[in-house]
Amino acid sequence: MAVFSVLTPFLALVLCVVSGILVLRSRHQSKVVDPRGKTQADFKPWVDQDLQDDCEVPTREDEEGEWVDSNMEDDVLHVPYSPQRHPEDEMLQRSQHFYALMNQRRSVRFISPEPVPREIIDNVVHTAGTAPSGAHTEPWTFVVVSDADTKHQIRLIVEEEEEMNYRQRMGDKWVKDLAKLRTNWIKEYLDVSPYLILVFKQTYGALPNNKKKTHYYNEISVSIACGILLAALQNVGLVTVTSTPLNCGPQLRLLLKRPPNEKLLMLLPVGYPAKDATVPDLSRKPLEDIVVHI
Amino acid sequence: MAVFSVLTPFLALVLCVVSGILVLRSRHQSKVVDPRGKTQADFKPWVDQDLQDDCEVPTREDEEGEWVDSNMEDDVLHVPYSPQRHPEDEMLQRSQHFYALMNQRRSVRFISPEPVPREIIDNVVHTAGTAPSGAHTEPWTFVVVSDADTKHQIRLIVEEEEEMNYRQRMGDKWVKDLAKLRTNWIKEYLDVSPYLILVFKQTYGALPNNKKKTHYYNEISVSIACGILLAALQNVGLVTVTSTPLNCGPQLRLLLKRPPNEKLLMLLPVGYPAKDATVPDLSRKPLEDIVVHI
Repeated sequence: MAVFSVLTPFLALVLCVVSGILVLRSRHQSKVVDPRGKTQADFKPWVDQDLQDDCEVPTREDEEGEWVDSNMEDDVLHVPYSPQRHPEDEMLQRSQHFYALMNQRRSVRFISPEPVPREIIDNVVHTAGTAPSGAHTEPWTFVVVSDADTKHQIRLIVEEEEEMNYRQRMGDKWVKDLAKLRTNWIKEYLDVSPYLILVFKQTYGALPNNKKKTHYYNEISVSIACGILLAALQNVGLVTVTSTPLNCGPQLRLLLKRPPNEKLLMLLPVGYPAKDATVPDLSRKPLEDIVVHI
Repeated sequence: MAVFSVLTPFLALVLCVVSGILVLRSRHQSKVVDPRGKTQADFKPWVDQDLQDDCEVPTREDEEGEWVDSNMEDDVLHVPYSPQRHPEDEMLQRSQHFYALMNQRRSVRFISPEPVPREIIDNVVHTAGTAPSGAHTEPWTFVVVSDADTKHQIRLIVEEEEEMNYRQRMGDKWVKDLAKLRTNWIKEYLDVSPYLILVFKQTYGALPNNKKKTHYYNEISVSIACGILLAALQNVGLVTVTSTPLNCGPQLRLLLKRPPNEKLLMLLPVGYPAKDATVPDLSRKPLEDIVVHI
């Protein structure tokens, strides 16, 4: 039997192609599943300043252009810092009052259409912007929507996606559970709330030389800013519900004309609670269940 | 030339093997890179209540046992909610004062060894625990370390990792930049601070029937809680620096005897600022650079 045959080159070719694909995939995959590997590319010199974002996986978008690490510590002047100091008893009181205030916060889906002064919303957003961020990149954009048409378009996009999700999930049980599910994807508050705050994370920025600057930990940074935003809303007596419209990010980004480096992280309807607002009757874990002293 | 040869079965065999590997990888990869796919397994019925965590990718740990979706909306009584309401001028004032307070916050690495009453720290952590979380899972554990030995062991683990990171990165420039880098990995505050708060995210929980309950969006939920924690610290006049010890998570988890479902998200040294504390002379973006009105 001959060593070579008409099939040999064909099989060899197919083998090469498949192997090629395999290598490419494994490369891509290693990037995806091991974003914290200690290779040159992954090293983060400013880690102590910084927040970790496991989500920083390369996407086609991110891979364009040349990447540059940033280290705010370099060449930055240091200045004295001596903030106001309170006596111990006052600190204790302040800590108690702030806990009491924050503990009254609830996620509220029934929001009043009453107008809210825009200056208050601006102060709340400005407060969120004081959050720390990886290498001080401040990778957030707060899109505040009060225009009725835009709010309605947002509602249509979100509800369509939600309904699709529920239908796919439910399958047979669909008809039976329709009524119950309906309440889950109908989001009246998207029309009713005086403001919708759409929080975008900037996955990368632009340097003066037009090189891309990676925003490591951008998701954690923006989430921390959202925590401070929730505190600021509670402090003035406004309510919201923390939501992430599943799969709507790209459509909403286009609707709001945000650049490709921005990705939707959260959508927060903001206003006064409706007169007849209700919340699920849930309690929070007691302190001893969330803290461990060593 | 013959259609078949001695090489044919060999090549065919290799082709099968390689194809097999390719298929397996692509399956695994699709899990990893497409955690939001709308398959049965990935569907999140409580998405509106919830926060998105792109980091929810299956790991060996997560794949053990049987997974159960949770939906806090089911079978939960709803109760009226009418929080305190302030007149507009008071709201405006409160929003201005809270912004002024939060805008004084800085990341501080020079922390005083002076003791801080534990009750104040407890109130601060309790406040962080009021954050919203995916399906109300409250997926956080705050380990508050005041024990000197444990603090020192934490320092040794963190500094060793940091030094390794810098050495690997620096290569040739190593000797030249040694002095400058040293300041980057020496973390005196880990010994000096009266408290180290290590914030762990619970990637999954246990149901009464011992099934695992996935904690979707646990990283975003815990990051929001950290934002509220930073606000609570600032409110009482204590300082910290938001840090994520790169690659130290597993070692620190074992040192602090945390269970495998918990992963370290942040390490916050907490105390009064040192008398001679300095901070990098940085400014924050003006409001108009972070907000867009529509």
